Amino acid sequence: MTFTILFGGSSYEHEISIVSAITLKKVLKQSALQFVFVDAARDFYLIPSDAMKSKHFASGAYKKEKRLTLKQGGFFLDGMLKSKRIEVGTVLNLIHGRDGEDGKIPALLSFYGIPFISPRIEASVLSYNKLYTKWFAQGVGVKTLPFEHLQKSDTRTLSTPLPCIVKPARLGSSIGVSIVRDEAELAYALDTAFEYDHDVIVEPFIEGVKEYNLAGCYTDDWEFSIVEEPQKESFLDFEKKYMDFSRDEQVHAAQIDEKLRDGLREAFRKIYDPLFGGSLIRCDFFVVNDEIYLNEINPIPGSMANYLFEEFEATLVRLAAHLPQEENIAIDYRYIDSIQRAKGKA
Amino acid sequence: MTFTILFGGSSYEHEISIVSAITLKKVLKQSALQFVFVDAARDFYLIPSDAMKSKHFASGAYKKEKRLTLKQGGFFLDGMLKSKRIEVGTVLNLIHGRDGEDGKIPALLSFYGIPFISPRIEASVLSYNKLYTKWFAQGVGVKTLPFEHLQKSDTRTLSTPLPCIVKPARLGSSIGVSIVRDEAELAYALDTAFEYDHDVIVEPFIEGVKEYNLAGCYTDDWEFSIVEEPQKESFLDFEKKYMDFSRDEQVHAAQIDEKLRDGLREAFRKIYDPLFGGSLIRCDFFVVNDEIYLNEINPIPGSMANYLFEEFEATLVRLAAHLPQEENIAIDYRYIDSIQRAKGKA
Repeated sequence: MTFTILFGGSSYEHEISIVSAITLKKVLKQSALQFVFVDAARDFYLIPSDAMKSKHFASGAYKKEKRLTLKQGGFFLDGMLKSKRIEVGTVLNLIHGRDGEDGKIPALLSFYGIPFISPRIEASVLSYNKLYTKWFAQGVGVKTLPFEHLQKSDTRTLSTPLPCIVKPARLGSSIGVSIVRDEAELAYALDTAFEYDHDVIVEPFIEGVKEYNLAGCYTDDWEFSIVEEPQKESFLDFEKKYMDFSRDEQVHAAQIDEKLRDGLREAFRKIYDPLFGGSLIRCDFFVVNDEIYLNEINPIPGSMANYLFEEFEATLVRLAAHLPQEENIAIDYRYIDSIQRAKGKA
Repeated sequence: MTFTILFGGSSYEHEISIVSAITLKKVLKQSALQFVFVDAARDFYLIPSDAMKSKHFASGAYKKEKRLTLKQGGFFLDGMLKSKRIEVGTVLNLIHGRDGEDGKIPALLSFYGIPFISPRIEASVLSYNKLYTKWFAQGVGVKTLPFEHLQKSDTRTLSTPLPCIVKPARLGSSIGVSIVRDEAELAYALDTAFEYDHDVIVEPFIEGVKEYNLAGCYTDDWEFSIVEEPQKESFLDFEKKYMDFSRDEQVHAAQIDEKLRDGLREAFRKIYDPLFGGSLIRCDFFVVNDEIYLNEINPIPGSMANYLFEEFEATLVRLAAHLPQEENIAIDYRYIDSIQRAKGKA
């Protein structure tokens, strides 16, 4: 099995995408791996496996690698006379944040007919924006915490009680997120969030809430990871999240009963099917008074949440064999022909 | 002002996109125009202005035109030694249906840094799917008709009273849409809709409902078209819609009072701002008992609804001068550097 890991991107999470890719290189031991880097200027580079070190990117040394161009059917190496297609197998979209999670990369790969593992465009847009995630979850019958949605131009009066959590609707990795315990902190928290987005979500912050993460995908059957109870402080800041993206050691399953586990899986299935077909995602849930709430969908989890799976690589190989197929639309010019005939021009 | 009209696409509406493009060629008299065709195989062709006739595409003659490749910064003509960028000015995304309206084309143009008029990715996904349009409209305070959402695997029991209208959630141009007046027709209508989509929307069909269309955009101010009361039979079938896409004669404004006109504009603004920035869209409304309901958003209306505007070309030129700018994300490798230092590797 050949996988091509696509990473980097014009994103606040560019650097953690590099860390994710290096981690997957360690984890995927049985497969043939290729690496395609998208730099800050959105140029594509083919990176040799032995150059997959963070310094190669931070120093700019990657610029000496071969450039690639996307064309119908794949990535092409530019040559003097004719460009040559490289065999990519299945692309893993590992670009966190903008480009990777906002739908651009899935759109490019779909348009150019390249097989890939990632949420598709619709699933990307619905999970990249926390407001849409709420609408979607409610629409498919999964509870979410109550929330308020503020736009930049709205008056900043809130009815959510303190403590609350203030989040930009779009970004990931806790960027621009604040916990507000005190009325005096609210204005600053909102300013911070609005620096990153014109839509902001405010939710009650529940002290000591039980949090459970479950990753999975659908191949020829449901494949679920273990349920993890994340070890956390109030929430992870960017640097801690960063370290989190390099995880490759399997974690211990949370001590939960079968009923809760089944409930989490049921909520996961409602979210995933059929919108997230072709992707491996992590859903982060809260449990309050025995009720399960979706906190957020992590459409491209750090290092693909490999540490939550017992057979991560085998799962990925099965997923690659069960990607959604685009519907074939035959274009026969029947209408144009009939109109031409009606006009006496055919 | 140079506009490049991008049309065709791998879409059920490929042919009406060609008709739209030919119509715009007639309408845009002051601007320099270029034409880029996306064929059924999703290859790009530069089409000379005098070849913009439907037969050129239906006959396959277009295949002799110059091929283009998208790269960072624009469309490039492939040459023997070096590829040459063509000046596109502002691209008008005129690809109706899949590719153009599902977010792929906006994603490509955004990724490659090409200025373009079209809904962006998020706006595309929210308007391409009638279910998401409902959630979104309600979220921004615009009423919609009540509806039921069915997935392919759901039991087909409905609580919507007859007559009702059955629509695939995604496609446009009335494809797969049926009006059901009789219980006996329901199963067939659902089968038809599910042939095109795994999500189906069922709404009450209100006989003789007042329908009003309003197009517009935001440039340095709001620019609204006249309000049209579409002349219609129950609804337009594909062939009639097709003819509709070639309209280039200005229509008469609907005879409505100022209060209704202002109400329609207010609903339009709530839908458009800020999500649809950079696009010219048409919103189709119903009015029932003096209440305004959004029926659907037409993100890329046929021939851009030119016939609804008094100064269509001037509006388009102003829109091109007020496109949303992508946020610049500086990537400085600060985190990688600090981690390298912490590991003693820097």
